[in-house]
Amino acid sequence: MNPIPGSQLLDQLRWRYATKLFDPARKISAEDWSVLEDALVLTPSSYGLQPWKFFVITNQDLKDSLIPAAYNQRQVADCSHLVIMTVRTEMTEADVDRFVDFTAETRGMDRERLAGYRNLMVGDIVSGPRGKDAVGWAKLQSYIALGNFMTSAALLGIDTCPMEGFVPKAVDEALDLDEKGLTTAVLCPAGYRLPDDKYATTDKVRYPNAEVIQHIR
Amino acid sequence: MNPIPGSQLLDQLRWRYATKLFDPARKISAEDWSVLEDALVLTPSSYGLQPWKFFVITNQDLKDSLIPAAYNQRQVADCSHLVIMTVRTEMTEADVDRFVDFTAETRGMDRERLAGYRNLMVGDIVSGPRGKDAVGWAKLQSYIALGNFMTSAALLGIDTCPMEGFVPKAVDEALDLDEKGLTTAVLCPAGYRLPDDKYATTDKVRYPNAEVIQHIR
Repeated sequence: MNPIPGSQLLDQLRWRYATKLFDPARKISAEDWSVLEDALVLTPSSYGLQPWKFFVITNQDLKDSLIPAAYNQRQVADCSHLVIMTVRTEMTEADVDRFVDFTAETRGMDRERLAGYRNLMVGDIVSGPRGKDAVGWAKLQSYIALGNFMTSAALLGIDTCPMEGFVPKAVDEALDLDEKGLTTAVLCPAGYRLPDDKYATTDKVRYPNAEVIQHIR
Repeated sequence: MNPIPGSQLLDQLRWRYATKLFDPARKISAEDWSVLEDALVLTPSSYGLQPWKFFVITNQDLKDSLIPAAYNQRQVADCSHLVIMTVRTEMTEADVDRFVDFTAETRGMDRERLAGYRNLMVGDIVSGPRGKDAVGWAKLQSYIALGNFMTSAALLGIDTCPMEGFVPKAVDEALDLDEKGLTTAVLCPAGYRLPDDKYATTDKVRYPNAEVIQHIR
């Protein structure tokens, strides 16, 4: 157990901002990227089902080609690593069974012990009310990954820009997601801010704590 | 700028798990909670709109009363601080204008300069396609907060348990959310694990990096 001081956490959460101007010359090191990739994979999800796939684009031609699909926002091209967070378009009993098998294998346990858990998941995510909006449920999980990723990157001193401003069909087509049973949830370029990006030092706009937090003691 | 080593980030992301057994005797200190509260408020959101309100329950009677609504999962009662993440049930032009006013005030700028941004937000979130599912959009934002909160807590050595397993109507009623124009998105108890919770040392179940990450170089 290796916790950090609260002041350091807040320093880095205040340091981060939605970076619109990335320095195209600065790349995230392989070592740093490996840490961020592990952080992404460690993201928790509903039932642990991980209904996602993260595309990590460093190919400059592909990044450049996505500018129009991002309403001409250059972050997708000028960043170091463009993360495209995609999610499964459906979750089936087979997906749940695969996850159960993998859980039993990972934990060296008898699959039978997971029968109740398996049926709970199927009843909820596959056949239940949430099964009717499988993509919506999966996208929620990907936003846990987005929050984790941005905080993790900030703690390492790496900039990010969460982006909902893109044409989903265009990004899906660029990555052939349809045939893979996936769809794009959100984009998150990562890299380093341009030194003269004035937004880096603009005051953050957050409603006061007293307004967005209500204590019931 | 005060970054942490990658190894420390991963230590804490591996240390965390969905804590089902909280120690009811251990409370998060006021100092630590203040840090986590600031971390929550600092969460980024689409356009910066912050369509959320976080209820922080420490009242034991209220926490106990929520056990049935949480399908008898005791985390809601045994944790130190129960965070109930709620979201706006709609976003109106007035909400956008309020945010624009607040931005202009925070940054000491002329509101006119934000006119384009204002119209973009109204056209997208209020009248546009996303306006048709305002709750869905707002819930996505709250899951950014969930991801940020869990990672932040883990970095401080504080346990959490993300929970989708609750009866939304029951929680909404317990907090009178309907009259406040809010609805519950997700629950996140926070506190400290019971020392003998075997799940604390069970292997994490994560598909291999090569499966959930695809590089395009």
